[in-house]
Amino acid sequence: MENFEFYTPTRVLFGKGQEEKVGKLIREFGGTKVLLHYGGQSAKKSGLLDRVKSCLEAEGLKYVELGGVRANPELALVKEGVALARKEKVDFVLAVGGGSVIDSSKAIANGAANPEVEDVWDFSMKKAAPVRTLPKGVILTLAAAGSEMSESCVITNPEVNLKRGYNSRLNRVQFAIENPELTYSVPPYQTACGAVDIAMHTMERYFSPGEDTDLTDALAEAVMRTIIKAGKEAYFDPENYAARGNMMWASSLAHNDLTGNGRKCFLPVHQMEHELSGLHTEITHGAGLAALWCSWARYVYTYSLSRFVRFAVNVWGVQEDFEHPEKTALEGIRRQEEYYKELSMPTSIREFGIKEEELETLAEMCCYRHTRTLPGYKVLDYDDILKIYRMSWELGA
Amino acid sequence: MENFEFYTPTRVLFGKGQEEKVGKLIREFGGTKVLLHYGGQSAKKSGLLDRVKSCLEAEGLKYVELGGVRANPELALVKEGVALARKEKVDFVLAVGGGSVIDSSKAIANGAANPEVEDVWDFSMKKAAPVRTLPKGVILTLAAAGSEMSESCVITNPEVNLKRGYNSRLNRVQFAIENPELTYSVPPYQTACGAVDIAMHTMERYFSPGEDTDLTDALAEAVMRTIIKAGKEAYFDPENYAARGNMMWASSLAHNDLTGNGRKCFLPVHQMEHELSGLHTEITHGAGLAALWCSWARYVYTYSLSRFVRFAVNVWGVQEDFEHPEKTALEGIRRQEEYYKELSMPTSIREFGIKEEELETLAEMCCYRHTRTLPGYKVLDYDDILKIYRMSWELGA
Repeated sequence: MENFEFYTPTRVLFGKGQEEKVGKLIREFGGTKVLLHYGGQSAKKSGLLDRVKSCLEAEGLKYVELGGVRANPELALVKEGVALARKEKVDFVLAVGGGSVIDSSKAIANGAANPEVEDVWDFSMKKAAPVRTLPKGVILTLAAAGSEMSESCVITNPEVNLKRGYNSRLNRVQFAIENPELTYSVPPYQTACGAVDIAMHTMERYFSPGEDTDLTDALAEAVMRTIIKAGKEAYFDPENYAARGNMMWASSLAHNDLTGNGRKCFLPVHQMEHELSGLHTEITHGAGLAALWCSWARYVYTYSLSRFVRFAVNVWGVQEDFEHPEKTALEGIRRQEEYYKELSMPTSIREFGIKEEELETLAEMCCYRHTRTLPGYKVLDYDDILKIYRMSWELGA
Repeated sequence: MENFEFYTPTRVLFGKGQEEKVGKLIREFGGTKVLLHYGGQSAKKSGLLDRVKSCLEAEGLKYVELGGVRANPELALVKEGVALARKEKVDFVLAVGGGSVIDSSKAIANGAANPEVEDVWDFSMKKAAPVRTLPKGVILTLAAAGSEMSESCVITNPEVNLKRGYNSRLNRVQFAIENPELTYSVPPYQTACGAVDIAMHTMERYFSPGEDTDLTDALAEAVMRTIIKAGKEAYFDPENYAARGNMMWASSLAHNDLTGNGRKCFLPVHQMEHELSGLHTEITHGAGLAALWCSWARYVYTYSLSRFVRFAVNVWGVQEDFEHPEKTALEGIRRQEEYYKELSMPTSIREFGIKEEELETLAEMCCYRHTRTLPGYKVLDYDDILKIYRMSWELGA
């Protein structure tokens, strides 16, 4: 059991109608002028954005708008947001959307509050760390990234084909409004991607090295079992409140550190996926994760066999074969793979149209041109990473 | 799934040696003059208190001391603390101890920061609510009450034989230092009482009315299974770091609301126990809970049979009897009872020397002389409450 720090100061308001409280909440956290940050058309079309504006106006809050955040949020828009926030002297950033909008908001808040750092990309490249930030709030419309409670912020810079994340205590948002009804309109494909992403935040922690973390492991299994069920229900029955609700709450808990406390957490599949969707920004993060996980798992499972057996038994309810633990472990991986297929998720990166000649590029980018390895029960170097990309690619033959 | 608010801003520093950071943490939260609040001799004898003082001095922090907190912390000492805090103009309260010291610290912080409320007991009687408080920190030396992450504060007023709790967002402490080694010296009886108390915070939420709370229920079961195992291990093997660690972390999560989100949470067994240890302050809260729970469960289980079946199967691993669910439910209760006996916990209130003629007094106090009932799947009125006290009492024949 490793020492850990757990800090989740985000106030979550969960349930129907909670978004009506947004103006009061911003006031409570000292906001007077808000940068209202969002994505494309859906928040406009649904009328949510208008309702939010009415709430802000009812509290006498001023605001400026910046829409247009795309999946894999891009540096250019972040820079535009930073400039706007400084020019307009906003003192609060409100994200209306999912993980991309939230991460873009975090980056803007950090950029605006640390003017001595000229290039906000320096935070992503870990050349600088924010020492202050603007207070932030979220109205969540997509259950997936868990950014609403995490300390993570992932931005893509298409000029250099890089997608990079950084962690900071300052990246925790002040409040998150989570109304499951606001996710009813999320299409099945995006719902499935969200279910993959949510589960993966916990799966990666669960398969990280550690020992004696009984409570953390049991909590992780609880989150994984729940998202498997809720994700599937929401995929086939989009207006199922219970399914959307359990999925939304799982998204927050899967990535707020609760499911990794006391373990040495690394996220190798995330790192490998970042190269995929960094290079091909049209790839949805969750789909990329699904396409990689089973190959990663089959490559490494012998290095932590008992964990993979435990996963099979406790998460998938596999009948344990005590004489042949590797069979039990592989059956757990197979069940996970079947689940992805049931939700029309890819299980090979070739499904994205990746060419064989791109595999080496991906592996090189992932190990920062041979300057890093990916830690875990099995430390992955360039050759390992290339093999895993190839395993996934060949599955699509 | 009910709407809920979840807010756990406490920064937890968990693991070996974390108490060395206490001075820096207090500085970080703006403290300059500290009220150092603790219990009896154990923190002195172990040398912990001296080490804490050195840490404060190393940071140039001033402090005044107030020791002497007892189990079921009393109003008189709280009042002394409030007077001291005001006189000495302290701006931070540091609790070194378990739930009693923490609750006493919360009450002092509220009393000191709200001078317009003349009698701090008014908070407990809900005649007034604190509108501000002093920042607080905890060095935890007993895994039990969960007060280190909860919004609860329970104080006893022996003049009127009342033990009363009140909740407030202001009751969340700023930081909690949780080093499992600091609980090695907790004697077996107190360890068992702690295990009962921890589990009960989650059991009471689990048996509260609600539906579709898949994630919350799975998390609750994770906490219950963990504390059953860790509590027993720590009872028989006091210096088992993993057991003490899992138990300590469970104490925080069992009562920080995580295991009740989305359910209508009531704590009827807690209410009934408060009368016991309010009337007989020598009774340890956890022991009182153990003595009451099985009788409460057998009295109410038919009103939420499927929950009790689920508890038996998912927490105790009982083989389900699908034809006779009540048998499965009762087997779960029996296993819980056996567990209490294994840890030498009482299962009858007669074991505390309660006299038969006191049963009516307890019931009357618990329903505030017929002015309240205890909500739940089965709403308990005076007659129900008296019957449960009597069931428990008669078990000791």
